[in-house]
Amino acid sequence: MRKQFLIEQIRTKKSYLCVGLDTDPALIPPHLLEQEDPIFAFNKAIIDATLEHCVAYKINTAFYESHGLEGWRAMEKTVNYIPTTHFKIADAKRGDIGNTSTQYAKAFLQQLPFDSITIAPYMGEDSVKPFLQFEGKWAIVLGLTSNPGAADFELQDLKTESKRLYELVISKVATWGTTDNLMFVVGATRSDEFINLRKLVPNHFFLVPGVGAQGGSLEEISQKAMNKDVGLLVNVSRDIIYTSKDTDFAQKAGDKALQYATQMRSYL
Amino acid sequence: MRKQFLIEQIRTKKSYLCVGLDTDPALIPPHLLEQEDPIFAFNKAIIDATLEHCVAYKINTAFYESHGLEGWRAMEKTVNYIPTTHFKIADAKRGDIGNTSTQYAKAFLQQLPFDSITIAPYMGEDSVKPFLQFEGKWAIVLGLTSNPGAADFELQDLKTESKRLYELVISKVATWGTTDNLMFVVGATRSDEFINLRKLVPNHFFLVPGVGAQGGSLEEISQKAMNKDVGLLVNVSRDIIYTSKDTDFAQKAGDKALQYATQMRSYL
Repeated sequence: MRKQFLIEQIRTKKSYLCVGLDTDPALIPPHLLEQEDPIFAFNKAIIDATLEHCVAYKINTAFYESHGLEGWRAMEKTVNYIPTTHFKIADAKRGDIGNTSTQYAKAFLQQLPFDSITIAPYMGEDSVKPFLQFEGKWAIVLGLTSNPGAADFELQDLKTESKRLYELVISKVATWGTTDNLMFVVGATRSDEFINLRKLVPNHFFLVPGVGAQGGSLEEISQKAMNKDVGLLVNVSRDIIYTSKDTDFAQKAGDKALQYATQMRSYL
Repeated sequence: MRKQFLIEQIRTKKSYLCVGLDTDPALIPPHLLEQEDPIFAFNKAIIDATLEHCVAYKINTAFYESHGLEGWRAMEKTVNYIPTTHFKIADAKRGDIGNTSTQYAKAFLQQLPFDSITIAPYMGEDSVKPFLQFEGKWAIVLGLTSNPGAADFELQDLKTESKRLYELVISKVATWGTTDNLMFVVGATRSDEFINLRKLVPNHFFLVPGVGAQGGSLEEISQKAMNKDVGLLVNVSRDIIYTSKDTDFAQKAGDKALQYATQMRSYL
């Protein structure tokens, strides 16, 4: 998906919501477990109910891989079910030496019809570049994440001789691609850093996880990190998809997505 | 696999060779493409021919994911075909927030019978710990890799206020596990750093890629990084598995594996 089309979708719907499909059979409504493919049955219902309130879906590949072949099949069916109006993210956190990253890029951007894939930057330039070679496809590189470990490790926040590590990572990675094929993951719980981040990369889209179950504030993110193109995809997973365990789960998820979208509309 | 058993295998076979199954249909002997599952047919023949010369196999998951469901099935068949005498590595470079890493750990250490999985450390402690919760299973964390990007990025080599980033990563990660459930990836092309690394983590196993196609020296690694338990698994992928494109490919791969093992024997 090209950037201009994504921005048009956001402007038309007045929403920059991404719904995260971290689908776990232990957490979905029990009545679905009787279906032949409970994961896909759940996703299909969630997608149908949330479609008009969001502009993107993020599939967390770990939740599919943990079910082996059946999980991979459910992921394939899910990404193929999402219409082309919506930006499709493989939240896969891949990254390896060049020839291996090329294989991952093929897996998600060619073999599967994702628009984008999340990338861990630890192995540097040749591990990221293979993901930037596909017209209309995106690499979304980890910048500053929202999990406890990001701080515990003191890695992303580490002070180098010049700047903190995440600043160096983001500044450097930004030179490898353009605002048309590169986004950054920035955790919602790090809103104190958003203004600083926008100085480094004013024009890139940010994929922002951490709203909802992880406690990030949608208001703060929107105030501090929005740019002239909106420039935000804010992901909510558990707080939307697991609103109810009853037969009304999809409707309840749709209602919750609408609440987020309504809040977003007020910031646009 | 427990550490003591792995060490016994190394001592008995006088080899610390790991064969990397980066299986690419474009590079395997053309006559195999007529088979129902060319990737597995190739792997099975390679495993049969190299089994007695190596102690471990490393499956590079990217090469399987790039073929979707069929690739995943070939990976499943391959890991199930490797006997329990051999240490099985999922070279998957995973790592995400805690609940997601738990799913990846299930995928590779429970759903699939791997002994270990490679991990990218960028997201810190809660992204690594879920992989350390399985008796007899291992996390192999990226320390200092051998690819050009590791230097281009100047990330792993970055000078922090106290030490270089990779030193900090390795020292910190070492506190999260033990020498019985944690190894480090250290690229063969970084042999200048091996002596320094052994000061930081004298007793951990290193998984060393980068010998063969990437140009690392087996002799230097062995001289500088071996410890009292040997402490090394040296991986060779392309230089062994793609020795011939003819019907004798497996025999040629076996011969090449034997050459490496013979060289290793002289260092033990």
